[in-house]
Amino acid sequence: MAGGVHGADALAPLTAVVLDALRAGAVRRGGPLPGGGPEGVEERFGALEVLPRHGVGAETALRELVELVAEGAADPADPACAAHLHCPPLAVAAAADLAASALNPSMDSWDQAPAATTVERAVTAELARLVYPGTSGRDALITSGGTESNLLGLLLAREEARAAGGRTLRVVCGATAHHSVRRAAWLLGLPEPVAVECPGGRLDPEAVRGALAALPAGAAALVVATAGTTDEGLIDPLPALADAAAAHRARLHVDAAYGGPLLFSERLAPRLAGVERADSVTCDLHKLGWQPVAAGVLAVADARYLAPLRLTADYLNADDDTEAGLPDLLGRSLRTSRRPDALKIAATLRALGRDGMAALVERCVATAEELAARIDAHPGLRRRPGGTGISTVLFRPTAADRLPPEQGDALVAEVRRRLLQEGRAVLGRARAEDGERGGARLWLKATLLHPHTRAADFDGLLDLAAEPVTPVLPAPRTTARTDGGTV
Amino acid sequence: MAGGVHGADALAPLTAVVLDALRAGAVRRGGPLPGGGPEGVEERFGALEVLPRHGVGAETALRELVELVAEGAADPADPACAAHLHCPPLAVAAAADLAASALNPSMDSWDQAPAATTVERAVTAELARLVYPGTSGRDALITSGGTESNLLGLLLAREEARAAGGRTLRVVCGATAHHSVRRAAWLLGLPEPVAVECPGGRLDPEAVRGALAALPAGAAALVVATAGTTDEGLIDPLPALADAAAAHRARLHVDAAYGGPLLFSERLAPRLAGVERADSVTCDLHKLGWQPVAAGVLAVADARYLAPLRLTADYLNADDDTEAGLPDLLGRSLRTSRRPDALKIAATLRALGRDGMAALVERCVATAEELAARIDAHPGLRRRPGGTGISTVLFRPTAADRLPPEQGDALVAEVRRRLLQEGRAVLGRARAEDGERGGARLWLKATLLHPHTRAADFDGLLDLAAEPVTPVLPAPRTTARTDGGTV
Repeated sequence: MAGGVHGADALAPLTAVVLDALRAGAVRRGGPLPGGGPEGVEERFGALEVLPRHGVGAETALRELVELVAEGAADPADPACAAHLHCPPLAVAAAADLAASALNPSMDSWDQAPAATTVERAVTAELARLVYPGTSGRDALITSGGTESNLLGLLLAREEARAAGGRTLRVVCGATAHHSVRRAAWLLGLPEPVAVECPGGRLDPEAVRGALAALPAGAAALVVATAGTTDEGLIDPLPALADAAAAHRARLHVDAAYGGPLLFSERLAPRLAGVERADSVTCDLHKLGWQPVAAGVLAVADARYLAPLRLTADYLNADDDTEAGLPDLLGRSLRTSRRPDALKIAATLRALGRDGMAALVERCVATAEELAARIDAHPGLRRRPGGTGISTVLFRPTAADRLPPEQGDALVAEVRRRLLQEGRAVLGRARAEDGERGGARLWLKATLLHPHTRAADFDGLLDLAAEPVTPVLPAPRTTARTDGGTV
Repeated sequence: MAGGVHGADALAPLTAVVLDALRAGAVRRGGPLPGGGPEGVEERFGALEVLPRHGVGAETALRELVELVAEGAADPADPACAAHLHCPPLAVAAAADLAASALNPSMDSWDQAPAATTVERAVTAELARLVYPGTSGRDALITSGGTESNLLGLLLAREEARAAGGRTLRVVCGATAHHSVRRAAWLLGLPEPVAVECPGGRLDPEAVRGALAALPAGAAALVVATAGTTDEGLIDPLPALADAAAAHRARLHVDAAYGGPLLFSERLAPRLAGVERADSVTCDLHKLGWQPVAAGVLAVADARYLAPLRLTADYLNADDDTEAGLPDLLGRSLRTSRRPDALKIAATLRALGRDGMAALVERCVATAEELAARIDAHPGLRRRPGGTGISTVLFRPTAADRLPPEQGDALVAEVRRRLLQEGRAVLGRARAEDGERGGARLWLKATLLHPHTRAADFDGLLDLAAEPVTPVLPAPRTTARTDGGTV
């Protein structure tokens, strides 16, 4: 077992095997991701059985599987792996997470997680203070990510509307809001959100006022703004949106999954001015924050807003136990068993301090701006007109501009897939307006979350993106496999 | 960073610090949990700042925090920590989880998790086969635990009812069903579940037929059965419940979060006969299965049942990418960013094999039965009449039987809290009927999930539970802290 006084002795030889396998796999991969596409990755696994009749033993299983997974990883520690809000984790966070795995505290009752309860309380207090520095009743929850945080944001507003006379909640968000907002409304049985157009990629407060005014009489409303859109890293005009929400007595939720960590930096925090006027705020530390997934946060201005999550289960938080002083954790999540993700966050924050976190965030933002300048200077690439998002840059090969729009977009998509197939780069894609040229175009997307890179580290990536696309035969379709015992 | 070719070199010294701190913390704890209750744990943290202005560095932060969390853990690797479905993780699983943290694959798109996608596909195929050995269209999803799996079970039934003419779904479950069933109905905007009484702790199929017959005409129905109740480890009569559901054209979901892993054992699998007739089945491998949280599973008999989860987000699974052969992962979870929990499961299953998993499950079940016999022979304890649950034993000090019912129950609760406060044992509590004596009583609960213990390892625990309770001053109430920067 991993716990107990002999746990570390049992773990030591196995973590050594894992570290060796990580090393060997990374060397064999030799780039940002494995070549050969999905078929190539599957082939490397051969006929390896996941559930054999008789086991192969811990060391063999770890050596085989970890080396295959490392060799077959899209590794965000490589500068050419820059597609998504998918960060390279800090070693301190990954190491702390090992302790979470070994001790296995479960955050649904104090008697499964005595000290981890203390750590979570301290971490959520600090994160709530980061978002709401001037509010005394603030609080924060740890979640599995932005999707769960957004779900909670909608759920809490739904419950408040119910409590206030059973009114139906209507959600008003931008067309650029994350898909989880729409999904949360579906899950919660709410009407489909009113999606307001976002000229230039940002929510227009006047359009939001119009949408709120057009809601059925008596509806309760929640405005969802975004601080760091997925496609462009843009921040909605939060103060004006807070005004619009207030004018219509609507609640305000800000999805700052991407942008929230700007608050660590005194220089960048002003970009999020107004966020403190939201009732609830999503923030992910597995994006800017360099945590292994999951490290989601939901901050609320007023802890009383969390009351609908209260729940009593006699085996976890009986009234007499709570009265006797045992902390009641059940109302702090929609989950029951729950990993102590606060531990890796605590280790990271304490190791780096606020200054250290700020420096890493600032580095990512600065590198993205330098990258934008290098794209502007690159003869084979054109950057999307306008500024860069938080740390997101959109661009396309000039070759795509010389084609009719649909074919140009197809070329952009093909460039991305070719680099993936060849194991040379992981770039993202986003559809966004083309400034004064008009019309939405498909762009390549680089999301810079690697805090130890400089813009020059991306020169190779830019050249790859500008390479002429030679015709590539379409990859044969992977057969869906929902059966069979080999990988 | 933890990834890349130098990631293992960065991790190695930090994992060494973590292992040392785990060792030191366990020795300082010297028992199943820290003494002194919540105040004692908080005091050990002193004024440690989680987010100082300047960081203390990775090694210092890890040494401090991991040692405090280990010293302050309720460690299920200690036989006297046996309250909950809270397992001691296997070292192989914890070590594999380190690789997940270091590489940080995110299971929302193939280009963030190429090889991890293959591993998840193989693991879910095996787990679906375990539950549905005779069905070809089966499938399974990895979840954050039984709570999310149960939510999915209700959601899928809700969507099917909607598709079939917009009928409202009504859920019929036992009074002993896990609280997450009721919570899922609330979250999904469904009517409150019909909770059927459970004489003897198990759902009565006749009562379920009655409840189904009493539903409003035109309602769609889902019966939720339990294979391993939280309080007693009891398994509902699945074949008769499947008959009842079929007779009323209701869907059947089985919450086998606890009992599902009995299927690894040819000897114990017959206890779950009928589970293969369910439309969906919850199974947690962070209970019997010895995984660090989270390792939840939802198995479905027919992959088409999962169709409502399908979702397209252009940045993750654009149609042309999917057509070009990139696997589409977005419909395999309610989450977006998602840790590859399949990796630790794969390493464990391959290391132990089906025989090895079966042996560990059988050991837990056998030890619980032996423990029951020892309780029967103990002069100071009385076991709840009837058989043991899967690996759960309920008992109470005979001293409690000599008091009026309410005072007897208070004594049981006090015994549990005293052992917690003194750091000597973590026992659970459950209210359950007292056989022919009649009436529901409070019992102490031992849930045996430690596969390397023998019944004799629990003798000390039994003596502790039988010790006369000396009056203990009520612990001062912990002040709720939602603010402040120290732990």
